[in-house]
Amino acid sequence: MRVIRTIEQLREALEYLRGGGHTPIGFVPTMGYLHEGHASLLRRAAEQSGTVVMSIFVNPLQFGPNEDFAAYPRDEARDLALAEREGADIVFMPSVEEMYPQAIRTTVSVSVLTDRLCGASRPGHFEGVATVVSKLFGIVQPDYAYFGLKDAQQVAVLRRMVSDLNMNVKIVACPIVRENDGLALSSRNVYLSEEERRQALVLSRSLREVRAALEEGKVRTVNEAKAMLQSVISSSPLAVIDYAEILTFPALEPLEGNSRLLEADGELIIALAVKFGRTRLIDNNVFTAKEVHALV
Amino acid sequence: MRVIRTIEQLREALEYLRGGGHTPIGFVPTMGYLHEGHASLLRRAAEQSGTVVMSIFVNPLQFGPNEDFAAYPRDEARDLALAEREGADIVFMPSVEEMYPQAIRTTVSVSVLTDRLCGASRPGHFEGVATVVSKLFGIVQPDYAYFGLKDAQQVAVLRRMVSDLNMNVKIVACPIVRENDGLALSSRNVYLSEEERRQALVLSRSLREVRAALEEGKVRTVNEAKAMLQSVISSSPLAVIDYAEILTFPALEPLEGNSRLLEADGELIIALAVKFGRTRLIDNNVFTAKEVHALV
Repeated sequence: MRVIRTIEQLREALEYLRGGGHTPIGFVPTMGYLHEGHASLLRRAAEQSGTVVMSIFVNPLQFGPNEDFAAYPRDEARDLALAEREGADIVFMPSVEEMYPQAIRTTVSVSVLTDRLCGASRPGHFEGVATVVSKLFGIVQPDYAYFGLKDAQQVAVLRRMVSDLNMNVKIVACPIVRENDGLALSSRNVYLSEEERRQALVLSRSLREVRAALEEGKVRTVNEAKAMLQSVISSSPLAVIDYAEILTFPALEPLEGNSRLLEADGELIIALAVKFGRTRLIDNNVFTAKEVHALV
Repeated sequence: MRVIRTIEQLREALEYLRGGGHTPIGFVPTMGYLHEGHASLLRRAAEQSGTVVMSIFVNPLQFGPNEDFAAYPRDEARDLALAEREGADIVFMPSVEEMYPQAIRTTVSVSVLTDRLCGASRPGHFEGVATVVSKLFGIVQPDYAYFGLKDAQQVAVLRRMVSDLNMNVKIVACPIVRENDGLALSSRNVYLSEEERRQALVLSRSLREVRAALEEGKVRTVNEAKAMLQSVISSSPLAVIDYAEILTFPALEPLEGNSRLLEADGELIIALAVKFGRTRLIDNNVFTAKEVHALV
């Protein structure tokens, strides 16, 4: 495994690998502080690709002024060990100066899809994501790029960007990886106190309970499902709900409050963002009515 | 020469040509109604490239609501004859539906550089240009892309976009091509009446006269040069000045009014936009103080 810190050296290395037929190029962009979720992306990439590139870059552009850019956890040595173990061929770890040598004046933005959920709570976040991912795609020119479905809105936004801009890359969305007790893996889980960590289980529990209630016919409409989410999450005294929404996926369009979830066409998403102290956690469940019917 | 109208067929054709080593890929994006300016881009591309792709697409996104999208001149048969004659290997002529099969929600925008000149007069224009050029670069994945310096701000904006987003393409800027009497070639020249056509010579004449006055030391400061441009252009009764500016190039930053042009570092641009009736023409001259000194 090679660790590369400059764009020029990465381009050269990739040109050489492409020339040698080590294709397709699979790309796993991350902000580091890697966990089993990232590991699952690397394994998926290794299955499909001749060369696996992982980037580790905490992108200042996607953090708001009062967010945790400076505090975002970093552990280079541990990250490199995980990347090596899980089959990365190249780890690209640029400095902020390497990625932004001058004030960036070009931005890539995706409208409508970013009006809700994290886009509403974190103004400018998805513009920062779309812009840095465009840059990384320009540098790596991957055939496949792997993203975790925990950031489901990110997957939706990047799929739309790739389609709208005719980028020659396929976005591969990989399932959420959870702890045994249900907590979705996140680099930010490290921020949680013991008590917050315990109460944070309410996110995955509320998703499971709404799904079960749908399967059992105890909950039928969008409003009923949302009320149940609110009620389950509020049972944790430390939980402060940012949003608990049910939308179409990947268009992220709202549904009528009295519409029946199991009559919807296509995929739906139940999406949550909940704060515990200063830590904001997200979780979601993407499903189709058909799939729930099959379970009943 | 092949004429291709769909993105999928173009990608296939280019993949085949790349596989056969017909590289580098040179790309000339145009809006058609081709003239000798476009021909010069094709010839330059043919010199440098194993495969020359020209696109002809009148992009609705870069026209304002009161601009000439519907009226923009089109002549497919004549364009194809010129492209063939000048060495294009592939002409890509997509429909609007092929390029925008659904409402486009992703936009690429370049700030600061677009606050002035045509960016100020045509709100949204450069966002439309940057977005469609991003799409075309995504489809063609060229090694070189050729643009005329008549649209000097477009060259500056696209260079910045390519640099900011790490796009793997080199923008090649080619000199303005003029009629024998000095009028810069433009597909929009066809809109001019005989009298407007005659008076439109004032654009190139004002550029030549200011350059000559600088060489002779009759004009020294930015303000003096601008006053001369205004005075020469105003000698044409039909001319309505949109802007007559002197800026740094390619940053497009303003200069102090009393600063001396021949003491400036780097490139400068004298940029004009002038209306004759409903037709808006642009012209410019990019030069360095050093180059003028060499002539004196």
